[in-house]
Amino acid sequence: MNKQVEEDFNVIAQKSNLAEMSPEEFRNIVRRGEFTEVTAVACRSYVQANLAIVPKDYAFEFLLFAHRNPRAFYVIDVTEPGDPHPRLVAPEADLRTDLPRYRVFQDGELIGEPTDIIKYWRDDLVTFLIGCSQSFDWALQAANLHYRLFSDYTINRQLVPAGRFQGPMQSAPRAFKNAQNAVRAIQISSRHLIAHGPPIHIGDPATVGVKDLGKSDSGWIPPVPWPPAPLQPGEILLWWATGANLSKVAMASKIPFMIVHRPGCMFITNRLSEELAIL
Amino acid sequence: MNKQVEEDFNVIAQKSNLAEMSPEEFRNIVRRGEFTEVTAVACRSYVQANLAIVPKDYAFEFLLFAHRNPRAFYVIDVTEPGDPHPRLVAPEADLRTDLPRYRVFQDGELIGEPTDIIKYWRDDLVTFLIGCSQSFDWALQAANLHYRLFSDYTINRQLVPAGRFQGPMQSAPRAFKNAQNAVRAIQISSRHLIAHGPPIHIGDPATVGVKDLGKSDSGWIPPVPWPPAPLQPGEILLWWATGANLSKVAMASKIPFMIVHRPGCMFITNRLSEELAIL
Repeated sequence: MNKQVEEDFNVIAQKSNLAEMSPEEFRNIVRRGEFTEVTAVACRSYVQANLAIVPKDYAFEFLLFAHRNPRAFYVIDVTEPGDPHPRLVAPEADLRTDLPRYRVFQDGELIGEPTDIIKYWRDDLVTFLIGCSQSFDWALQAANLHYRLFSDYTINRQLVPAGRFQGPMQSAPRAFKNAQNAVRAIQISSRHLIAHGPPIHIGDPATVGVKDLGKSDSGWIPPVPWPPAPLQPGEILLWWATGANLSKVAMASKIPFMIVHRPGCMFITNRLSEELAIL
Repeated sequence: MNKQVEEDFNVIAQKSNLAEMSPEEFRNIVRRGEFTEVTAVACRSYVQANLAIVPKDYAFEFLLFAHRNPRAFYVIDVTEPGDPHPRLVAPEADLRTDLPRYRVFQDGELIGEPTDIIKYWRDDLVTFLIGCSQSFDWALQAANLHYRLFSDYTINRQLVPAGRFQGPMQSAPRAFKNAQNAVRAIQISSRHLIAHGPPIHIGDPATVGVKDLGKSDSGWIPPVPWPPAPLQPGEILLWWATGANLSKVAMASKIPFMIVHRPGCMFITNRLSEELAIL
């Protein structure tokens, strides 16, 4: 077990009540700087969101970019310029402090991974909250599905560009025990359209250009044994688009200023996944 | 039968093969100015789209406005500024000529209802194609549902504003023969999320502020006996959001320049409704 995974496990062990917390309780802990790890285990059944912040001059192109890549970036909420409060999904939250960790990019270069972005805040920043697969992971677990989560991989497809935004597509596969589990997972994830919706690929990693499932490149490692065990007989891989893409988009697009969430460190909204499910 | 309805019926009678035409064939007829009526009967099972054109300076706010009102305005395609070709859904089409009739607004005032907008075209215009209920009407008919289509009504709710865009919500009710038909219609329309998705209201017109179903205010009258017969015992009204809103939005928002489709005169894409259905 590598150091990061060990730390994640320790956090989970120490704060085993995270899943039972309300979003407001959890965000308060994050805001005080007492939790700076991945949010996967927090606030069962609540929608978690990836984050992208760009200057207003780039807001149309980013919104269009998200719209053209709905599997990767389904937009849940967009703030007014300079407003750090997501009025639609958690009006009392502060997007500058309520994520465990951020990534700040200048001209495509990572300049920091702070636990808040107060000192970077500007009146012209527009914040996008974007659906994240954690929302349907809770739903898969609620349906008692048997699967293993892998990490995120850059695949051999490009996102559809818009204006100055571009980037490689990334995908997170999950290995389901058998076809019955896989079919049910497709049905369930299709209902959660804000959380990437249905998979973008089934099966062979080579088809999407992934040679080694033991080599992740997103920087995010799930809180499971790593590297993952090889695929077992009968297991079926389903591949979903991910929003861990956002760091890659910042790097590929090289816009002057952009802030995203650190992979795995999402914003937790006040909405239940079932509230935002389409069916 | 009023004059407009009579004309619509005549067109349908004369061109009874409209429903069997391909989108390209139909658009060619429209481009030549040989068809300037409502498109409801054309190109069975193909996605029809409402149209909004705004200067680039307004594009972010309009896209955000659409995003905040997904039941009324689900964005299917967005062109690059000045590009009249919808690359995603019908690249060979020309959005300046391929709708039967347009409405041109200056500062919220209607200045014309031309059959093409060549003379109004500018390099900074961004075009939005927006889902329209005709797409699920074909699906309802394919499921052999029994219902009557009414017109569009302004209801007692406001659209969620974004930037300089605002307007009243409009809704188109359909009266289903009984609960079984109505439930099936909710299921089917929910699959067609680009085409307004599920209804926004069930039942009593008074709840949404409509006093008289015989008084429509959208300017669009469906090709059915009008005014409609009173509700029959057992009939259930389902109310969907509509994109006939777009003229109302142009009028309420008073932006300097905006072009929309004339209600009922939609753009027909190359995509089948089933291609774009979510489930």
